[in-house]
Amino acid sequence: MRTITIKDLGDLSVGATLLGTGGGGDPYIGKLMAEAAISRYGPITLLDVDELPNEGLVIPAAMMGAPTVMVEKIPNGGEILKAVSSLERTLGQKAVAIMTIEAGGINSMIPLAVAAQMGLPVIDGDSMGRAFPELQMTSFHVHGIRATPMALVDEKGNHLVIEAIDNPWTERLARTATVAMGGAAIIALYPMTTRQAKTAVVRGTINKAMALGRLLRDVSMSVEDRSQHLQQDHGGVEFFSGKVADVERHSGDGFARGTLACTGLGRYADSILRIEFQNENLIAILDGKVVATVPDLICVMDRETLIPVTTESLTYGHRVTVYGFPCDPVWHTSKGMDTVGPRYFGYGVDHTSLYSGV
Amino acid sequence: MRTITIKDLGDLSVGATLLGTGGGGDPYIGKLMAEAAISRYGPITLLDVDELPNEGLVIPAAMMGAPTVMVEKIPNGGEILKAVSSLERTLGQKAVAIMTIEAGGINSMIPLAVAAQMGLPVIDGDSMGRAFPELQMTSFHVHGIRATPMALVDEKGNHLVIEAIDNPWTERLARTATVAMGGAAIIALYPMTTRQAKTAVVRGTINKAMALGRLLRDVSMSVEDRSQHLQQDHGGVEFFSGKVADVERHSGDGFARGTLACTGLGRYADSILRIEFQNENLIAILDGKVVATVPDLICVMDRETLIPVTTESLTYGHRVTVYGFPCDPVWHTSKGMDTVGPRYFGYGVDHTSLYSGV
Repeated sequence: MRTITIKDLGDLSVGATLLGTGGGGDPYIGKLMAEAAISRYGPITLLDVDELPNEGLVIPAAMMGAPTVMVEKIPNGGEILKAVSSLERTLGQKAVAIMTIEAGGINSMIPLAVAAQMGLPVIDGDSMGRAFPELQMTSFHVHGIRATPMALVDEKGNHLVIEAIDNPWTERLARTATVAMGGAAIIALYPMTTRQAKTAVVRGTINKAMALGRLLRDVSMSVEDRSQHLQQDHGGVEFFSGKVADVERHSGDGFARGTLACTGLGRYADSILRIEFQNENLIAILDGKVVATVPDLICVMDRETLIPVTTESLTYGHRVTVYGFPCDPVWHTSKGMDTVGPRYFGYGVDHTSLYSGV
Repeated sequence: MRTITIKDLGDLSVGATLLGTGGGGDPYIGKLMAEAAISRYGPITLLDVDELPNEGLVIPAAMMGAPTVMVEKIPNGGEILKAVSSLERTLGQKAVAIMTIEAGGINSMIPLAVAAQMGLPVIDGDSMGRAFPELQMTSFHVHGIRATPMALVDEKGNHLVIEAIDNPWTERLARTATVAMGGAAIIALYPMTTRQAKTAVVRGTINKAMALGRLLRDVSMSVEDRSQHLQQDHGGVEFFSGKVADVERHSGDGFARGTLACTGLGRYADSILRIEFQNENLIAILDGKVVATVPDLICVMDRETLIPVTTESLTYGHRVTVYGFPCDPVWHTSKGMDTVGPRYFGYGVDHTSLYSGV
């Protein structure tokens, strides 16, 4: 058990952006919401999942939609509480803890804001160990936990409760509703018992995000030293450095989809890296060869500072360094790879280890 | 008070097809469901709205979607009960009567099926006096009654409860969900008190549909005599007779939209009639002149039998007669005309009386 105070949010924000692998939504707005909630209601208790009681209801909360929309469609502040309370009402039970669906991006912050408001602890963990674009892409799904009942709330006051036959149907119904709501919505879903949470959560990812953020923001260290730590302490692999030549994006179907192209610099001169994304970076192709794929993390960072950069803020000429990080072992299971492997996203390749090619 | 038995369903079906004005969904499948329910649970009580108690909950039930899809996406039978029960659960109250949203098309039958199952009476009336394509196009909306909480259920077992900020938002959220569910869904919506129903319902439309059906199916009368009755007893105006030259349809956005073109026969020889529809017929243009528009009813009938024909079953060469019928007075109010007048559907004309031009 530890507490999260306002001064932790800077580190968490940077670490969560790295785990967002280009997507996840810039944590900026979520950070403002968490800051406001902590300054009003006080620090938040962060619990290891084993510190939870044996019985009780856990409710995860998040924002859903295209990151490009999320950064412009600011919640009014009441939606998260409304979404979580809606599930409590539907289930006729009060939550004992709030959980994070994805440690990457804005969804590292949304649960903190509602936990502070409700005076509930947050579990140190998530269901991805990163960010993924679709609702069924969770360790909860891999462990057979249903995403519904699920509540969706928008900033105008519209409110839906979904009961779906399976998690892919939940994704489909929630995605179309999110698009109808304007491209982003606040959600509460995967309500579960503390017992289920203990089995299914990807552990320690909030602390991990804070540690990554602390490292990347530590200007007392040189970029080279920070880079060393990323490799030694976090399994990172640098596989490219260069500048952005082109970013193509479209967001019509509730996702930000597109391609990033970079030309190499330094020891990567004459190389071209292409990254394709659906909110999050899915596949990296260096000079025609696949060098990294989901579920591993493909992270684009500023070349001079190593601060991670979200896809929507990349612009022509930006100097970047690209890293891969290994995914959580849950994704190496057969159901895990079926759910988030490159073939699910339509690529005709198998996942290969980050360490095999570079 | 009277009862509806299986032998009434034939008349109701034909009359409801006429009131469906080309859309509303062919009552055939609904008729099978109502027949099955009546033969299992017994006849249904049809109540005048004034026979309802002063206090109590009334729940309307319907099918939503493109009629072209409805005729191919057959409910499994449990959806209507699930949708109505879902609203009862949400509101914490049992219904005392079932109501019809639209007397035109399949939605004349859906409420009967669930009323028989639940042993509840059906109110003799609806909210349109015909069929309209969108959820807010109801006398309930004109009287300020909210469409939500609204339940949507599909044949697979998916289930949504919507709470929207207003009725156009309900339409938007329900329409996208219906499209995601495959183009058609069973809905329960506009839950209201018996007191509200007494103010807002369009009265007597179930009996009216049965009377129309009885007339149109009465083969002891000549077509000319039936035509006379349509004009004298129901205010009908014949404004065209001819054959179908072309029907263009598309159903991508949850509606069946398109245009019907007919070339004239007999006294309409050398004339061309064009009808545009969004599920229901919206506007009829004879030789370039608007002769009828929503909210009046534009009804296409078989030329030899006067049996009404839905848009999805019209084919090249079909001999048809086209009638207009006056709409319920609720649509002549300012809010009524804003909700369903020709300008709402994007036509730059005002509604003109059926009797002015022909």
